Amino acid sequence: MTAVPSRREQIHSFLQQNNLAAWIAWRPDELLILSGYFPFWGASFLVCFDDQQPVLFVPQIEPRDHIPPGIRVKEYPWGDLKCSDPYSVLVSFIGDELANARIKPERVGMNPSASRTSLPIQAGEQIPIAEDFAAKLQTLAVKADARTQQAFADLYLRKTQEEVRSIRLANQVANVGLRAFDENLQPGLTEAEVAAAVESAIYKQIGRDGIFHSRGWAMVQSGPNSADAGRFNRSTGRRLQDGDLVLIELATCVNGYWSDLTRTAAIGSLKTELAELLALVEDAQRSAINAIRSGASAAGIDAIARDKIAAQGLSAFFTHHTGHHVGFRYHDPGFLIAPGVSSELEPGMVLTIEPGAYIPERGGGARIEDNVLVTPTGHEMLSRINLIAKEPR
Amino acid sequence: MTAVPSRREQIHSFLQQNNLAAWIAWRPDELLILSGYFPFWGASFLVCFDDQQPVLFVPQIEPRDHIPPGIRVKEYPWGDLKCSDPYSVLVSFIGDELANARIKPERVGMNPSASRTSLPIQAGEQIPIAEDFAAKLQTLAVKADARTQQAFADLYLRKTQEEVRSIRLANQVANVGLRAFDENLQPGLTEAEVAAAVESAIYKQIGRDGIFHSRGWAMVQSGPNSADAGRFNRSTGRRLQDGDLVLIELATCVNGYWSDLTRTAAIGSLKTELAELLALVEDAQRSAINAIRSGASAAGIDAIARDKIAAQGLSAFFTHHTGHHVGFRYHDPGFLIAPGVSSELEPGMVLTIEPGAYIPERGGGARIEDNVLVTPTGHEMLSRINLIAKEPR
Repeated sequence: MTAVPSRREQIHSFLQQNNLAAWIAWRPDELLILSGYFPFWGASFLVCFDDQQPVLFVPQIEPRDHIPPGIRVKEYPWGDLKCSDPYSVLVSFIGDELANARIKPERVGMNPSASRTSLPIQAGEQIPIAEDFAAKLQTLAVKADARTQQAFADLYLRKTQEEVRSIRLANQVANVGLRAFDENLQPGLTEAEVAAAVESAIYKQIGRDGIFHSRGWAMVQSGPNSADAGRFNRSTGRRLQDGDLVLIELATCVNGYWSDLTRTAAIGSLKTELAELLALVEDAQRSAINAIRSGASAAGIDAIARDKIAAQGLSAFFTHHTGHHVGFRYHDPGFLIAPGVSSELEPGMVLTIEPGAYIPERGGGARIEDNVLVTPTGHEMLSRINLIAKEPR
Repeated sequence: MTAVPSRREQIHSFLQQNNLAAWIAWRPDELLILSGYFPFWGASFLVCFDDQQPVLFVPQIEPRDHIPPGIRVKEYPWGDLKCSDPYSVLVSFIGDELANARIKPERVGMNPSASRTSLPIQAGEQIPIAEDFAAKLQTLAVKADARTQQAFADLYLRKTQEEVRSIRLANQVANVGLRAFDENLQPGLTEAEVAAAVESAIYKQIGRDGIFHSRGWAMVQSGPNSADAGRFNRSTGRRLQDGDLVLIELATCVNGYWSDLTRTAAIGSLKTELAELLALVEDAQRSAINAIRSGASAAGIDAIARDKIAAQGLSAFFTHHTGHHVGFRYHDPGFLIAPGVSSELEPGMVLTIEPGAYIPERGGGARIEDNVLVTPTGHEMLSRINLIAKEPR
């Protein structure tokens, strides 16, 4: 193996031979090569220099415990409800870093395509679409202006009856996964073991009821880890214990249509302050759902949930929006159920309602999330329905 | 629900109001909305018209059985070893389609960003990076020319000792999944059930041996379905039967580093022609691996496997390359182990060796794939090693 230069030597030779003083990277595989870091959200940006430590810009919601030593870490406001354009902030941060190092753009490189390698539909990788291909394609199409792009995004908002049926099916399959979650809430099992059982139950539904594609992504956080769930979701090797809150974030894709659910359960008996937290989040969620009807405003629905949590003095711990559109994606484009959003609900919209509160000092966090259809006369729950038998055989 | 216009009406209004005669789409969610089709590979392109059936361009390796009615389907040569630039062919096909419909580019729209929504690192969705953001970022960096991009891609080729350790760990975890595969090779189980058990075993490894991220993507194809495995891999609801060949394609990502393995097993006793097929592929793979050493040519390694299969008159059924680089991705950039590739192997390269033959007339296909490190004196198998206990507890 002595014939292979060290990674540092390989990077040095690359920069030297290409007359580069720095390289900007964000694809997961580029970060691995340049720094050994596997990004959690896939939105971390690395500036790699020839003669100084690399700088890694991470979303403020990125977990920090697996970033290798020898990297300067800075955060940018991705995930901050108050920042509407975190990427512009990021660009200015990277610009400052390069200016401080007195490096001109002419000596900075990056792979220009905006396509990325990430996990694809069937397996662990996206088919990258190269920039020159996208450019060729655009000779065939007017480059849609912002108004047209927005008009296209509006196509996501109102689901037809047939589409609602498909999203309901995704929620039915998700419920099979949630039953596996309930059955595996046993002290001594690891978070990853519980999550694996949930995903397995979902995958096994292929072949039933016209299901040709069924995938779940389950992330389970227990005890103190559940207090992280407002920033990120992941499963660790921690073993469930009596007295834990256990939160599951579950994405489910069935034949292309998506469900997005969260449950928070208790193992054994909870401390009073955790039981109260869970009851509060349940109340906030139920109250917001009950208010869903055609003509209600997004901000109004958000306020109902947020006020319930604020009334207990806990508003600082509800750090995210109350909901979003769902169905064609895990997160559809469209307005958020969030403060200041005046958009009104219309029949056919499918929304998540997912208030939460995450309190490290109490040793736990809770979120409950369902998928709700707006109807002409009110709403209909698409989750919490169990029409598919648990076992496929 | 009567308040929601049909999807056709919504698309018609969108095109009319934006003065568009056609729309080009390729993101999975756009295809769902415009046609109800969830693309298999994620490389299908839809041209949606206002006044005629949409046209769907699919890779020639796309399965066809879940494309909804009412769509004209055309294929383009993605997955054809002989076509070096399928996307250019695709652009000309789309251009022809629009010209035949007498539609000018001025009345064709598409979302211009090359970023796509697909499955991300942690869950079911990629964080899209918008084109205007990528453009801003590029004001900070020279737009790397083709030579520099190639130089960057060369950084993937030679893995350091530390990186090899990480790829070996990913293969050890993959082997835990393959043991679950062996244990679930039982008549009556569905392909999806077997695959789910494999993925579950891999996810459960989180928490052991420094493993903080562990994901498998298992696709199992049995009996006649195994004959599809040269074009695509997926699990269906088909139940395993005595006499089946059962093929598993398994991608495993551990802490960011990848393994890419395939096994083909038998249920009960095989027909002679399937047993001979399996033995032939095993021989082809073993012979190619035995020839791996520093200085060997990619075409030479490919020829060893290909000649074995051709000697039995089956070359038409070995439709893909013999191997590729692996480790930082499921498929690393770099030369293929394929006919006509003169590149020489160097120490530190990690390659898949994966000959196969898929014969519908015999009712089965076989592929065997391992990950092999090139060393100064020969090679080292990174797969087929079992240093992690099967059960995490």
